[in-house]
Amino acid sequence: MRTISEQACFGGIQGVYAHDSEATGTEMTFGLFLPPEAKRGQKVPVLWYLSGLTCTHENAMIKAGAQGWAAEAGIAVVFPDTSPRGEEVADHDDYDLGQGAGFYLNATEEPWAPHYRMWDYVTDDLPTLLAREFPLDMERQSITGHSMGGHGALTMAMGVKGRYRSVSAFAPIAHPTASDWGRKQLAAYLGDDERLWAQHDAVLMLRDVGFPGPMLIDYGSEDEYIDKLMPEALAEAIASTRQQAVFRMQPGYDHSYFFVASFMEDHIAFHAEALLA
Amino acid sequence: MRTISEQACFGGIQGVYAHDSEATGTEMTFGLFLPPEAKRGQKVPVLWYLSGLTCTHENAMIKAGAQGWAAEAGIAVVFPDTSPRGEEVADHDDYDLGQGAGFYLNATEEPWAPHYRMWDYVTDDLPTLLAREFPLDMERQSITGHSMGGHGALTMAMGVKGRYRSVSAFAPIAHPTASDWGRKQLAAYLGDDERLWAQHDAVLMLRDVGFPGPMLIDYGSEDEYIDKLMPEALAEAIASTRQQAVFRMQPGYDHSYFFVASFMEDHIAFHAEALLA
Repeated sequence: MRTISEQACFGGIQGVYAHDSEATGTEMTFGLFLPPEAKRGQKVPVLWYLSGLTCTHENAMIKAGAQGWAAEAGIAVVFPDTSPRGEEVADHDDYDLGQGAGFYLNATEEPWAPHYRMWDYVTDDLPTLLAREFPLDMERQSITGHSMGGHGALTMAMGVKGRYRSVSAFAPIAHPTASDWGRKQLAAYLGDDERLWAQHDAVLMLRDVGFPGPMLIDYGSEDEYIDKLMPEALAEAIASTRQQAVFRMQPGYDHSYFFVASFMEDHIAFHAEALLA
Repeated sequence: MRTISEQACFGGIQGVYAHDSEATGTEMTFGLFLPPEAKRGQKVPVLWYLSGLTCTHENAMIKAGAQGWAAEAGIAVVFPDTSPRGEEVADHDDYDLGQGAGFYLNATEEPWAPHYRMWDYVTDDLPTLLAREFPLDMERQSITGHSMGGHGALTMAMGVKGRYRSVSAFAPIAHPTASDWGRKQLAAYLGDDERLWAQHDAVLMLRDVGFPGPMLIDYGSEDEYIDKLMPEALAEAIASTRQQAVFRMQPGYDHSYFFVASFMEDHIAFHAEALLA
């Protein structure tokens, strides 16, 4: 692992690091905010923040306003990249397929299969590295994300049992097997057998397994992508499965980081309650 | 004036607008955050945020984390651009001269004189527009800024008497007549007569006129530009003139927006106390 930068931030450290990932077979870059306690060597809980289409590790780190609240709660925040990258990594001209659009799954189809293994990267490879290199308490993890990253947070929270104490999402892609943001990518990465897609669809996973902890979901009523996100399917699934959850439709907000930042305090406080209990 | 965008943000509105400026003779773009009270038509106080070298109206709007605290305090925040822009506007290859580097003064020298009139823009032209177009209480204004914008905030606070109730700055260029960030630009924009430079130097203005209200200054001890900012000259001038002020050297922080965001809560609370008294 090499350090790209470390900067003082809200009494803690905002770092950016790169490492060779076994999962993706590429060099991966991630951001990590450590709260003040970690500087003194104390092990702190971890909140994963998964980003959306076109983002790198950097966007949320700069624009989501998470660090101040994480510092106050004494929680680390990890900002992974959204896909493998590099000249040797397959890509596509569309913004929503290929680099910047890994969809938090392990691809089985060519040309994606060799490197597009973001499920393993986020749930196995990167946590192993973090546990080794930083003062983090890996027994206390929670997960959140925005848009495609909200999809990743929800599917990983339900797919990796016992790992995450709480899950939240900002404007998640909730039902990708039924959406333009999903069918295209699931077909490309996983092939045409739709039965294999179900473990990457939050609505279907809610009906199948659910999440044994608290869930917080925010959407903006003026979200310009709301037809692709399908909040109505998620709300229905939460209600019909009796999932412990708070689902909020926020009047007037769009899909941007202004929306994310506006409700970040609530999300960090929500996870802190689960992580520090 | 035309609206470029308006987005919900912390219960208020983050807008971006463009207008033809009489001061600069160009179209100028600015950001304006209005807190929830303003949406209900209530007149709110105004905090000016002046940005640093290379920035547009957008950087601080996205990265400084001001809106949440401004919403809580019920204060509007204006984010002006840092210079006139456009093909007809003189520019220079250096990042610290010309477009993006207006230094918040009225240029008298060619080729800058026709458009580089940021002093008039920020203190006269834009406030007139704001008072006409938005529910702002122009009797209650304060000013802050970062780096070159900290220079602008301090010099305008002292130069426009009775206008601003409080002034603060993040890592301001404090003594440009004695710094590489200053001598070059003052010579280019104002000519070789150094006596004319004094009204654009916070340290010299402190000795000359001072500020009849509270002042808050933050620097990071690891600021990579600290030799050009000259905090020691500002601290000395505050002490020797008995200026009402809080001067803070923050251990470990650099010059970035992570530094600015880390102390934004303090700065907004400081101005709120003056504006809402």
